[in-house]
Amino acid sequence: MADSPNCDLKSLSPLQLFEKVTEQGEKVRALKAGKAPKDEIDAAVRMLLSLKLSYKTTTGQDYQAGLPPKDLVLINNGTTKEEEEDLVDPWNVQTSNAKGVDYDKLIVRFGSSKIDTDLINRIERAIGQKPHHFLRRGIFFSHRDMDQVLDAYENKKPFYLYTGRGPSSQAMHVGHLIPFMFTKWLQEVFDVPLVIQLTDDEKYLWKDMTIEKAYEYARENAKDIIACGFDVNKTFIFSDLDYLGTSAGFYKNIVKVQKHVTFNQVKGIFGFTDSDCIGKISFPAIQAAPSFSSSFPQIFNGKENIQCLIPCAIDQDPYFRMTRDVAPRIGQPKPALLHSVFFPALQGAQTKMSASDPNSSIFLTDTPKQIKTKINKHAFSGGRDTIEEHRKYGGNCDVDVSFMYLTFFLEDDDRLEQLKQAYTSGELLTGELKKVLIETMQPLVAAHQERRKQVTDEIVKQFMTPRKLAFEF
Amino acid sequence: MADSPNCDLKSLSPLQLFEKVTEQGEKVRALKAGKAPKDEIDAAVRMLLSLKLSYKTTTGQDYQAGLPPKDLVLINNGTTKEEEEDLVDPWNVQTSNAKGVDYDKLIVRFGSSKIDTDLINRIERAIGQKPHHFLRRGIFFSHRDMDQVLDAYENKKPFYLYTGRGPSSQAMHVGHLIPFMFTKWLQEVFDVPLVIQLTDDEKYLWKDMTIEKAYEYARENAKDIIACGFDVNKTFIFSDLDYLGTSAGFYKNIVKVQKHVTFNQVKGIFGFTDSDCIGKISFPAIQAAPSFSSSFPQIFNGKENIQCLIPCAIDQDPYFRMTRDVAPRIGQPKPALLHSVFFPALQGAQTKMSASDPNSSIFLTDTPKQIKTKINKHAFSGGRDTIEEHRKYGGNCDVDVSFMYLTFFLEDDDRLEQLKQAYTSGELLTGELKKVLIETMQPLVAAHQERRKQVTDEIVKQFMTPRKLAFEF
Repeated sequence: MADSPNCDLKSLSPLQLFEKVTEQGEKVRALKAGKAPKDEIDAAVRMLLSLKLSYKTTTGQDYQAGLPPKDLVLINNGTTKEEEEDLVDPWNVQTSNAKGVDYDKLIVRFGSSKIDTDLINRIERAIGQKPHHFLRRGIFFSHRDMDQVLDAYENKKPFYLYTGRGPSSQAMHVGHLIPFMFTKWLQEVFDVPLVIQLTDDEKYLWKDMTIEKAYEYARENAKDIIACGFDVNKTFIFSDLDYLGTSAGFYKNIVKVQKHVTFNQVKGIFGFTDSDCIGKISFPAIQAAPSFSSSFPQIFNGKENIQCLIPCAIDQDPYFRMTRDVAPRIGQPKPALLHSVFFPALQGAQTKMSASDPNSSIFLTDTPKQIKTKINKHAFSGGRDTIEEHRKYGGNCDVDVSFMYLTFFLEDDDRLEQLKQAYTSGELLTGELKKVLIETMQPLVAAHQERRKQVTDEIVKQFMTPRKLAFEF
Repeated sequence: MADSPNCDLKSLSPLQLFEKVTEQGEKVRALKAGKAPKDEIDAAVRMLLSLKLSYKTTTGQDYQAGLPPKDLVLINNGTTKEEEEDLVDPWNVQTSNAKGVDYDKLIVRFGSSKIDTDLINRIERAIGQKPHHFLRRGIFFSHRDMDQVLDAYENKKPFYLYTGRGPSSQAMHVGHLIPFMFTKWLQEVFDVPLVIQLTDDEKYLWKDMTIEKAYEYARENAKDIIACGFDVNKTFIFSDLDYLGTSAGFYKNIVKVQKHVTFNQVKGIFGFTDSDCIGKISFPAIQAAPSFSSSFPQIFNGKENIQCLIPCAIDQDPYFRMTRDVAPRIGQPKPALLHSVFFPALQGAQTKMSASDPNSSIFLTDTPKQIKTKINKHAFSGGRDTIEEHRKYGGNCDVDVSFMYLTFFLEDDDRLEQLKQAYTSGELLTGELKKVLIETMQPLVAAHQERRKQVTDEIVKQFMTPRKLAFEF
């Protein structure tokens, strides 16, 4: 690993700390076996003890040789010691809190960094314009190494964006657009190339679905993604099932990652078991590989080691913790990350929206009438039981789903603040707040549908053809 | 991650346990040699004793340094624990019998069928010529579904051949040629297309080797394979690292196999453990996929379900047992197989030849002088201790390596029979038998070297370019 044991231990994940303690233990044994000078051995032992202390502080557990940190599994399968821990992994999000997942706790558990005012101000200085409201409102709330990306950008060094989607069905909902809307903004303000992975192979492996169906969903989803307004000259969208068979560099990076990750590790990170198919077990390497620019020789002119920045929902972080752990061991830079919160279901912020329940979401195919009915009927209200009580005590924006949706989609800061004040004071009723949301979502979805209609098969083909993008490397 | 000695020993295969005991023994020796503190040595010794106990419990045998467990195949098919079982898997071949592995027992254990006189006669009728001496002499001794291949052939239905090689080093020995010599003959007599897989990805995953080196070995090995005389219009040779990135169909078949095989299954078949990297765990699907014609759309004009016949050494059978198990579940025909015996080391038939020990083999790069010296010095003799005894009692062809080599390389049946009679009766001395072998191998290797010289990079490129072959499908 590139980091020295003296590097900022707080930035390490429990698994990385575990490996550091193990390494240091081996070093101490080697020094003793080799009869190294006493002061050298003593220094190594002190470092070992300090690493063990960091490990205990971070994980709340004593280090035990051969037993990777439990906490990593906890995060992923929710069998927590603490009762009230949220469950967050690529396949599940679950919390008992109506406000949604406790993101501050998640930052501590995942070992990422909060996107604070300093960082937002630095982004503003770098791009010379107001940061996206997703940043200003804490919707993208956590990051890894964004400072390094900004360092590179300020030094005129190139970087690229990577995001993706698992095409599990034809129907996408408005929540699915969040990472793409933000990525589009990042691409515009930084003027950088973008790769978008559609993990149709993952969906084939996880779901009861044919390869052909998974690939069809990938192409359909590509249309909705393109309709977000990406620039075809700067964007490459790929289906794994397609691209793996057309890229010299992609498989090589996959097999490199696969050599450096054990079953024990993916068991710890993703909760896989012996009964899982070998496709699932090796899949994390396929989501990892696009973090390395050599997976796209056509885009980067064969140049390697170009910094990657991944905007994604926080539930995808386990893949990239693993990727960042492997990167230095295969001579690649660690990808940086920007993490978003989850988009709440209409029924409340306890769970992520689900594409399989039509009432849990506003879908990109919904008519204005469907949108109106869904919001009126299903959007969980933070208002009071009676108009009298509401006028007296006011509504609760922290749990009101209509208000949450407006923080995502209403760009006007002043208007949002007014609505918050009026709802909290009881001046604005639930029905009135819902009306604002309906009037926000109807034109937004209609405009998306209009743009999607323009996306012909020919345009999809252009985006999905491996090619040189409009950048020089 | 480094294995800890505390990890679950029950999940380890006998061979892995064997390696753990060996490792721990070395550690104890190192500690003692390094005069480590007494308590540290004591702890290591306790661990060693406990590992030896686990080994005995699991294998029913006492641990003996240098003697790996005898029953690895048993593990692979989960049956009995007989004393004198041979060890046969894709990475190990071990027997205590100087005649070599007991192939009749292997057929029973693997559940394959013996290539008997009836089948050989049927092949003769089908092709209208004398079968290859590898068939007549039992060098290819076992099969799966060869009858079906002949049914198809007699009904003018097409089939194709698939074989391969793991390019672990630049140097190939004469034993490596056996499957290729036989495959070439099959291609000629049946006039069918042939695909040859070079598993450079496997070698990268298993060995301490860069991707670039593995790929280089693949190309070097391709030259030796081409020098066997394959027809470029009917043969496609591919490196996994290359072809995976150029074929639409190959990855789709890989991921199909990966969806239908669990970790539990590959653990049972190949003895993988939780400490193995996810690349090894998913690799068997990559060796399986060329068994399906849709992996080669360019050859078969996109036609699927064309019968495949795989000539290979019997140690590769675990891969194809797995493949045959999966095939019907992904709507593909099961590949048929022809299994060869192992090629013995010069030192005796107890082990397979090894590319890493130059004296264990005659290499394709050896000079006439080296061949002479190696045979005279290292070829295990079945002769008697003194000339007098030899004349009186005769030599033993069953254990004599020179005679074994002649069964592989001396095509003249009558001559071979004469040599056998003369050696068994004591008329022919060991030195004389060795002389015959030297005179057989020297021109054979020289001719190979001459043909290999003709194999230019351009010719390699032709063989390795995905393309239509000279067949209509």
